[in-house]
Amino acid sequence: MENERLKQQIEFIVEIDKLKRVMRQSRIIGDIHDELLWENSAEHSWHFAMLAVILGEYADKTVDIGKVMKMALIHDIVEIDAGDTFAYDQLGHLDKAEREGKAASRIFGLLPDNQRDEMMELWMEFEERETNEAQFAAALDLVQPLLQNYYTQGYSWQKNKVTSDQVLARINAATKNSKTLKNFVEWLIHDAVKKGYLQ
Amino acid sequence: MENERLKQQIEFIVEIDKLKRVMRQSRIIGDIHDELLWENSAEHSWHFAMLAVILGEYADKTVDIGKVMKMALIHDIVEIDAGDTFAYDQLGHLDKAEREGKAASRIFGLLPDNQRDEMMELWMEFEERETNEAQFAAALDLVQPLLQNYYTQGYSWQKNKVTSDQVLARINAATKNSKTLKNFVEWLIHDAVKKGYLQ
Repeated sequence: MENERLKQQIEFIVEIDKLKRVMRQSRIIGDIHDELLWENSAEHSWHFAMLAVILGEYADKTVDIGKVMKMALIHDIVEIDAGDTFAYDQLGHLDKAEREGKAASRIFGLLPDNQRDEMMELWMEFEERETNEAQFAAALDLVQPLLQNYYTQGYSWQKNKVTSDQVLARINAATKNSKTLKNFVEWLIHDAVKKGYLQ
Repeated sequence: MENERLKQQIEFIVEIDKLKRVMRQSRIIGDIHDELLWENSAEHSWHFAMLAVILGEYADKTVDIGKVMKMALIHDIVEIDAGDTFAYDQLGHLDKAEREGKAASRIFGLLPDNQRDEMMELWMEFEERETNEAQFAAALDLVQPLLQNYYTQGYSWQKNKVTSDQVLARINAATKNSKTLKNFVEWLIHDAVKKGYLQ
């Protein structure tokens, strides 16, 4: 192929296929005895982007939903090299930023320069949680796995011995741009405790 | 939960988790002997949306990329009820529109009325292939599985005895809004034949 720019873009598109093989600590909703029903990061990213499409009206400070969708789609691509770091894995979080920074440079570096820069900036913006879009995206990225857990009777919470205190401790930082989703998540956690899904 | 509108939205979000279990005739790039490496429609939708993010510059007539991303994210949700219809399954295409129409009514019908209408319209717009966005999305939805096939040495083409004539016959209708992607797809198919991936 002679189009050098398109060739680089296709190389990136083919590389990110690997995200479909990065496994998470979340289960797909369905038979909890089915050992194949674990979620991967590509599926999570699609679902997260769908939450942006459907729940956009709950951002307190205005957001560009197109940008939130893009954040959702690309936010986990670094996991191709860095692996998924479970939200409650304190040891894994010690070098998460370093591992993911290297991964971002390599993977987004496959793209033509202007797109590499755009993707790096968007990914960093999400990680820094400072803009309206990043803060709203953080809420959606919290809600998605909580739903997976709630609707599998707390399968992953129990397997990983996660407590309600640990889940509650993450809420404030993640819901700065959505009072409605903050209330929803608090309700969900309390209801999960009441139902015995979460200790 | 007391917020009736949010309750409907969450019900939809939980329902569409099932797209992660709708299997396609495409393989994930990787060990071609690994029986688990088949792609599902949630993974495909994520990848398709990423193609929109990266290849948007190749639309000949201007497109709203946010809209193309949304189309990519939702276009296969009907398969939760209707199943995936393989591109070369002529019998399956006889009642595809009917099966998918019913599915759209039921699944998008879980949403609050204004969002149900918005999703139905967006899905219909994609299916009808008339607007710039729908035509450009069609090109991306063609390119994504072709790449999966090419980079697995034509695994699914061979398994399903698909010929280059059948693939070439789909190009014109799917690439009305991108001369660059039309050229790319033609190059890819000819190269696949040359390499022996496709008859």
